[in-house]
Amino acid sequence: METIGHLIGGQLSYQASRTQDVFNPATGAVAKQVAIAPKATVEEAIAAAQAAYPAWRNTPPIKRARVMFKYKELLEQHADKITAMIGAEHGKICHDAAGELQRGIENVEYACGAPELLKGEFSKNVGPSIDSWSEFQPLGVVAGITPFNFPAMVPLWMFPMAIVCGNTFVLKPSERDPSTALFIAELLHEAGLPAGVMNVVNGDKEAVDTLLTSKDVKAVSFVGSTPIAEYIYSTASANGKRCQALGGAKNHAIVMPDADMDNTVNQLLGAAFGSSGERCMALSVAVAVGQEAGDTLVAKMQEAMAPLKVGECSDKTNDFGPVITQEHKDKVVGFIDSAEAQGATVVVDGRNPVIAGYENGFFVGATLIDNVSKEMDSYQQEIFGPVLQVVRVDTMEQAMQLINDHEYGNGTCIFTRDGEAARYFSDHIEVGMVGINVPLPVPVAYHSFGGWKRSLFGDLHAYGPDAVRFYTKRKTITQRWPSAGVREGKSFAFPS
Amino acid sequence: METIGHLIGGQLSYQASRTQDVFNPATGAVAKQVAIAPKATVEEAIAAAQAAYPAWRNTPPIKRARVMFKYKELLEQHADKITAMIGAEHGKICHDAAGELQRGIENVEYACGAPELLKGEFSKNVGPSIDSWSEFQPLGVVAGITPFNFPAMVPLWMFPMAIVCGNTFVLKPSERDPSTALFIAELLHEAGLPAGVMNVVNGDKEAVDTLLTSKDVKAVSFVGSTPIAEYIYSTASANGKRCQALGGAKNHAIVMPDADMDNTVNQLLGAAFGSSGERCMALSVAVAVGQEAGDTLVAKMQEAMAPLKVGECSDKTNDFGPVITQEHKDKVVGFIDSAEAQGATVVVDGRNPVIAGYENGFFVGATLIDNVSKEMDSYQQEIFGPVLQVVRVDTMEQAMQLINDHEYGNGTCIFTRDGEAARYFSDHIEVGMVGINVPLPVPVAYHSFGGWKRSLFGDLHAYGPDAVRFYTKRKTITQRWPSAGVREGKSFAFPS
Amino acid sequence: METIGHLIGGQLSYQASRTQDVFNPATGAVAKQVAIAPKATVEEAIAAAQAAYPAWRNTPPIKRARVMFKYKELLEQHADKITAMIGAEHGKICHDAAGELQRGIENVEYACGAPELLKGEFSKNVGPSIDSWSEFQPLGVVAGITPFNFPAMVPLWMFPMAIVCGNTFVLKPSERDPSTALFIAELLHEAGLPAGVMNVVNGDKEAVDTLLTSKDVKAVSFVGSTPIAEYIYSTASANGKRCQALGGAKNHAIVMPDADMDNTVNQLLGAAFGSSGERCMALSVAVAVGQEAGDTLVAKMQEAMAPLKVGECSDKTNDFGPVITQEHKDKVVGFIDSAEAQGATVVVDGRNPVIAGYENGFFVGATLIDNVSKEMDSYQQEIFGPVLQVVRVDTMEQAMQLINDHEYGNGTCIFTRDGEAARYFSDHIEVGMVGINVPLPVPVAYHSFGGWKRSLFGDLHAYGPDAVRFYTKRKTITQRWPSAGVREGKSFAFPS
Amino acid sequence: METIGHLIGGQLSYQASRTQDVFNPATGAVAKQVAIAPKATVEEAIAAAQAAYPAWRNTPPIKRARVMFKYKELLEQHADKITAMIGAEHGKICHDAAGELQRGIENVEYACGAPELLKGEFSKNVGPSIDSWSEFQPLGVVAGITPFNFPAMVPLWMFPMAIVCGNTFVLKPSERDPSTALFIAELLHEAGLPAGVMNVVNGDKEAVDTLLTSKDVKAVSFVGSTPIAEYIYSTASANGKRCQALGGAKNHAIVMPDADMDNTVNQLLGAAFGSSGERCMALSVAVAVGQEAGDTLVAKMQEAMAPLKVGECSDKTNDFGPVITQEHKDKVVGFIDSAEAQGATVVVDGRNPVIAGYENGFFVGATLIDNVSKEMDSYQQEIFGPVLQVVRVDTMEQAMQLINDHEYGNGTCIFTRDGEAARYFSDHIEVGMVGINVPLPVPVAYHSFGGWKRSLFGDLHAYGPDAVRFYTKRKTITQRWPSAGVREGKSFAFPS
Repeated sequence: METIGHLIGGQLSYQASRTQDVFNPATGAVAKQVAIAPKATVEEAIAAAQAAYPAWRNTPPIKRARVMFKYKELLEQHADKITAMIGAEHGKICHDAAGELQRGIENVEYACGAPELLKGEFSKNVGPSIDSWSEFQPLGVVAGITPFNFPAMVPLWMFPMAIVCGNTFVLKPSERDPSTALFIAELLHEAGLPAGVMNVVNGDKEAVDTLLTSKDVKAVSFVGSTPIAEYIYSTASANGKRCQALGGAKNHAIVMPDADMDNTVNQLLGAAFGSSGERCMALSVAVAVGQEAGDTLVAKMQEAMAPLKVGECSDKTNDFGPVITQEHKDKVVGFIDSAEAQGATVVVDGRNPVIAGYENGFFVGATLIDNVSKEMDSYQQEIFGPVLQVVRVDTMEQAMQLINDHEYGNGTCIFTRDGEAARYFSDHIEVGMVGINVPLPVPVAYHSFGGWKRSLFGDLHAYGPDAVRFYTKRKTITQRWPSAGVREGKSFAFPS
Repeated sequence: METIGHLIGGQLSYQASRTQDVFNPATGAVAKQVAIAPKATVEEAIAAAQAAYPAWRNTPPIKRARVMFKYKELLEQHADKITAMIGAEHGKICHDAAGELQRGIENVEYACGAPELLKGEFSKNVGPSIDSWSEFQPLGVVAGITPFNFPAMVPLWMFPMAIVCGNTFVLKPSERDPSTALFIAELLHEAGLPAGVMNVVNGDKEAVDTLLTSKDVKAVSFVGSTPIAEYIYSTASANGKRCQALGGAKNHAIVMPDADMDNTVNQLLGAAFGSSGERCMALSVAVAVGQEAGDTLVAKMQEAMAPLKVGECSDKTNDFGPVITQEHKDKVVGFIDSAEAQGATVVVDGRNPVIAGYENGFFVGATLIDNVSKEMDSYQQEIFGPVLQVVRVDTMEQAMQLINDHEYGNGTCIFTRDGEAARYFSDHIEVGMVGINVPLPVPVAYHSFGGWKRSLFGDLHAYGPDAVRFYTKRKTITQRWPSAGVREGKSFAFPS
Repeated sequence: METIGHLIGGQLSYQASRTQDVFNPATGAVAKQVAIAPKATVEEAIAAAQAAYPAWRNTPPIKRARVMFKYKELLEQHADKITAMIGAEHGKICHDAAGELQRGIENVEYACGAPELLKGEFSKNVGPSIDSWSEFQPLGVVAGITPFNFPAMVPLWMFPMAIVCGNTFVLKPSERDPSTALFIAELLHEAGLPAGVMNVVNGDKEAVDTLLTSKDVKAVSFVGSTPIAEYIYSTASANGKRCQALGGAKNHAIVMPDADMDNTVNQLLGAAFGSSGERCMALSVAVAVGQEAGDTLVAKMQEAMAPLKVGECSDKTNDFGPVITQEHKDKVVGFIDSAEAQGATVVVDGRNPVIAGYENGFFVGATLIDNVSKEMDSYQQEIFGPVLQVVRVDTMEQAMQLINDHEYGNGTCIFTRDGEAARYFSDHIEVGMVGINVPLPVPVAYHSFGGWKRSLFGDLHAYGPDAVRFYTKRKTITQRWPSAGVREGKSFAFPS
Repeated sequence: METIGHLIGGQLSYQASRTQDVFNPATGAVAKQVAIAPKATVEEAIAAAQAAYPAWRNTPPIKRARVMFKYKELLEQHADKITAMIGAEHGKICHDAAGELQRGIENVEYACGAPELLKGEFSKNVGPSIDSWSEFQPLGVVAGITPFNFPAMVPLWMFPMAIVCGNTFVLKPSERDPSTALFIAELLHEAGLPAGVMNVVNGDKEAVDTLLTSKDVKAVSFVGSTPIAEYIYSTASANGKRCQALGGAKNHAIVMPDADMDNTVNQLLGAAFGSSGERCMALSVAVAVGQEAGDTLVAKMQEAMAPLKVGECSDKTNDFGPVITQEHKDKVVGFIDSAEAQGATVVVDGRNPVIAGYENGFFVGATLIDNVSKEMDSYQQEIFGPVLQVVRVDTMEQAMQLINDHEYGNGTCIFTRDGEAARYFSDHIEVGMVGINVPLPVPVAYHSFGGWKRSLFGDLHAYGPDAVRFYTKRKTITQRWPSAGVREGKSFAFPS
């Protein structure tokens, strides 16, 4: 059975304190093993990154960018291989995996603009014949810790920009689907990246803590659940590192009475059930304003959900795949159970899907729950499964209050045709990423990704312009040349 | 005896758990009392700020900026009063206090540009007929905690920008010289600021901890010593706030053999002894490269220091004043003693200055110490007094290594005529603010202030462009209008 | 009778080849004379500006900006005097003149941000140890030629930004209402501007041509009618100057069936009749989509226009004042006549207003014309009077085609509640300034003003960010220091 | 014999009013024919571009950018073919042609950043609930007219950025070496560009005038000689187009007494003789400050020039190739003759090089002329050949005056080690592109290229950030939503 190892200083390594099973979630079978790095291996990766840093830092930004130009080509050439890798370990359908990869590549494209993005500000004559300017210099070694749900995209949010800014990198991907990150890291060398600039270690909490406490790691980017994000942020901060830690979400869509309802339903289908709802931007709550909008929405959703197909990743006719583990399946089903028990109406029930030939897979079918209320466990917590809950309210103000009261503030959306409603919503909602008739308002790669409230810890958002700022530190130089030596023909003897 | 109180919701308040002496450092006498706020008073200030927030947030940026335009006028009108206030409690000479105030006003001037500074980025067609843009929205209530050494300037680094970005503010100034902050805060109301937007509380650790743990305080800016900065940063971070905490410094100047030596000496005088060296940007170590440069530097410094006058703040012929307290004087003298004991040469000795009529003042004279080495206590720690130490090295690389090895990385400078030396230095030195023949490379208000290493905790620097980013949070909106209703003449009936 | 002169090198001058009458348009009487500068006087002004240039260019931007901070204070202090001046010569009502002045002051406020706005871009390591940066240096002497309709605002669009960028300025204001420009130019000196940096000459075509052909004038900003704008642009261009020349307009509002009709009517009143329609952004054509919208609009407009009062400037109860001259009154009335003759319906007729006590004033009352069509003279040309014409169409596409077919493309607006209609309109309309429910979409001072098609000749718009670019030229410096002389301790003897 | 045709609407076309010889300048033989387009053919190209415009304009910027990503790959894949094409018609040595292509590709790389570069500015709350933002929309059809000396690079300065901004393009390359432009234009289609977005026409003045006067061409970019640039600029401007026209140059290097002389000589060799001096940034005048610097410079240059080899393009050991035509060779030789006749000293004489096997080629050898003075014809005019002239002066001020007095202001350089001299020079020299120890200070692709004085007509420089601004027009939208219809549950019936 194949074992997934580490990439350190340009070489594969298989050092392990232990190994851990990697499942195929569609079959439920163990497919591979992943090497769990001991502390020394993580330190070795950090040391490799530190050793590669001085030369990489001094490489002109345009040359660093050209590695990314080539890297984009290579990712596109290997797209089928990568999407198959994602499918085999994560379970998402190939077209969805292709979408994930494409979103990741967009961050590589943005990183190609490094020479533009790294420009500092130059001020002539801040005083008489005194000039001042800023430079954005790299930090050194930076680390990324990434989740299972986007094994290609989330790493690609981080390392292309970190690297193109002149840093070197240590990535700890999710140990549940580790192959993809390792493969795309190796491709960087084919693109011309010097050995040691990019390193990957697989591991568990020991690896994480080694990264968080190493004096040579200058910054940490994290994406995962809120409790872990909070731990990462406070630990990294207390260890003198800069940190951005992205956590959980509960993304609501307000459905207004004037919404184009067919479009709304069509949008919600993908946003709620795509990738089995295992997305931090998954649209998991629809808040219908008014009795009629709610009734129409539920009726049309029920109808639209009927043909949805859940199944194995390589079959393109499937709409979404299994969830990541049996434990997670149990948790999702438990939330549906609890909603039912607490008085909600399960309109479409995906608790017991039958997938011929994949009876042991971790499948949950698309589920629609109506009459959900604020107090229910399924409302308060992140389900991370293919479950759309409908909450009924009378007014838009009530809908907005619901959202603003939730502990998370990642994404949200309003469906309406009305300019005023859209503007009022986007202005006053306490959420970092807002959609107007866009249910998954993930910012494009040239903007930045980040939630508010307990969905993100840190000052700066992920990728885009904020990433440039996160992965560099400002240096300000003030310069005056005091005497007109050679210009006025004076001879200054050097001490001999 | 006058008691200095608080400013809460536009009203002066004198609630106190106790009062504390405020000295006139030139006479050594207790001049005033300051009210130390109990927890409840700090919470009242936070509540006042929270109450003022919604209306202030919705005030257009140009109207917020106009308060700052008017505020600049008022600060200039009251400059003499403010500089006298600073002198009476801090001790710095009036021309130095005027310089401090001017530097503070420059931040008000920068804040007047809020409409320009708050612009977000707009992207047309991120997809077909989909647009996306970013907004920089205020955070809510933010707090500033400021040190004794710049009682006007450091608060002015913070609250003008925080307020103009739409936040409301609670300032806790140093309890050693609290009058100035209170006075300039009151002036804001004369400039048209609504009550509650700006609040001041005097207090001690209880006040600080109340600010750091309040759920309604969204961000904290701090300037002070490194141990406190580290405490502030980790506590604020662990409480879910964004934080920037600026700490101590040890600022070196490299004196190259080709430097214009008369200019160098002239620059060092002000940079080392101005404001009694109680500046986080004070130039406290000169690193002379080569025997001849060192000998010349020490000889010329000794000569130039002879006429320096230390004394009371209102006498413009004085060059600098007392240090802030008797304890601090003892500490500074102790560092000189230790350097001498550890083998350095005290070339000019300021330990026992005689200031006629001010025999009980906290005065230390300008002191020059040669042959200082890396191991000495006086080298490793921040003295914060009018003491310039000279270290001798053979090469520029040695000089740079010395600087890069120090725990602090606030400011530094090189004196040279050589373009290559200057560029190499500014590129490779691990310090946030770099001067080329500029011994106090404090960035102008339209750049940002921040050290590296243990001189600053946080991602973003103080004032300037970084302050805009620190005092706002990014929201990204993605918008699509799905159907051409009214444009194509379709009639959509609203639910009735 | 008072004669209005010139301001040259800080001194008033009354050199004149002839003088010309300045009228009070409310009474129709000649109120003052204006000196018409001969060529030599204009050359003297250019020479004064040229002489002042080197010192002003080298003045740090922050010091130049501080003149503008003070200037803003002074303009506000003298606001009543300035609005009275505008009223006496232009005729607009005092509240309207106050609005004009305020809009002008906003450009002074923006100019205060010069240190931020003039920042160049700094690129470290464009090659190994090679840096490159841009600087935006002033041009030298620049000229402004401004129209009668905004005697304060349009000059304030130009000279504050030109001056704060380091240029010196020669202004030729309209000879019909020349007092205001002269007065506000003099105020600059009180604000601390050195003599010669700002100069004003009154004159006619000879003055204009002298400016356009002088080798020392580096740029020309013009606002006026399209034929003159075209002449100015081609002449200045052929003489090697940069030029921006803003011309005429025909600003349409589309009124959609879903518009909030009461708000629409309320907005149109001010946009069509304010300042007698003598604004390049006046809303002079309403395009109603659908029979019902058109009928409702005309009926409500007719009703809303009934209480409108035309009269003398100092009476605040008046809504608007006279037009600028008798000739212009005749022209406006002629357009109404022609529309009527060509088949349009004059719904509200302002051709013969009776203004008690001002029987000789140049008054035209608010006029509403329905059923206007594309072929009519009154549609094709700019009326520049208090006349709103209504065109009826069946679809939004027809309305947009009408606008896109017109030779002008200055401003336009749509009234709707529908997000999709607004977005489609703003994307596809061939007009430079677009309002969504904003009938006078004049960009705020921190954006830029400019029409498309034959409404503007030149690459860059007026005021705001574009003005910074217009009034400066880019210099790009690339720097490498080839040998590590002093750093490596090498001794380089200078030739002696 | 091969005939070079046009590319119109994605198809090759050979319409011709006549054909013209294309020479191989190394052999002097006619190698190909080029079709000279009649007016109708040019109009056809404009029409094809106009037809392709609406769809291309509406293509999202990221999709337009992806064509450029692919295009970069293709240009790199075909690099050998392209450099051979350049060599065959222009004569430059293959390594020099490769450098040209690389510089061109850098502009493609920059164009890949279109989504970032096209961002507009978004202002929330310019008034209460009113927002305003800017968009940079494409112009329509734009034209480029390019010179013989960089048959790949100068077209690549223009069309990638114009196209990525959403415009469609008509290129008229030099008819002396037309193959390269046609080939690289064809490659665009392989990269995915829709037919008609890019078009190429070969032609003469008739073609140029057709482009300059067509109402459908919205902007013209030109690079060539100053008299033609001036004609292009004034004609295009008078025809209502935006235009940037880059003309001639006379680029001086000041050699200071403290310069690293070996480095200086080494730099000057390539800068003066590379590409036979047929570059608008060629360094053609060295101004030596002081007798000793001048003597050393001339002696070392003479020595360094001895091994220079002139010859055929495919031989990599050659340093440079022939000039473009026999007429041009005669002109260059004539300038050397005239300098000699007017009193200068021809130190190294390249007038009669013997190139075995290429006796009829248009070769001129590297030439060094000392003691040149301001009055000589060879100093006043652009030679555009492999000729370096040395002027002797006593002071840096004299050297700078010489440069500032010249009609051209394209590029310049100073060789010095002294920071003050470099800063004074770069600040006060009236030249657009300045080098500090960089003899060819061509800005990198992410800065912009442009001279001052009579070296450039227009407001905006070529390529880089200025190109984005040149190839787009600003639209400013101001938006308010007047009534809270659907949000407050009001029912608005549409007219039926």
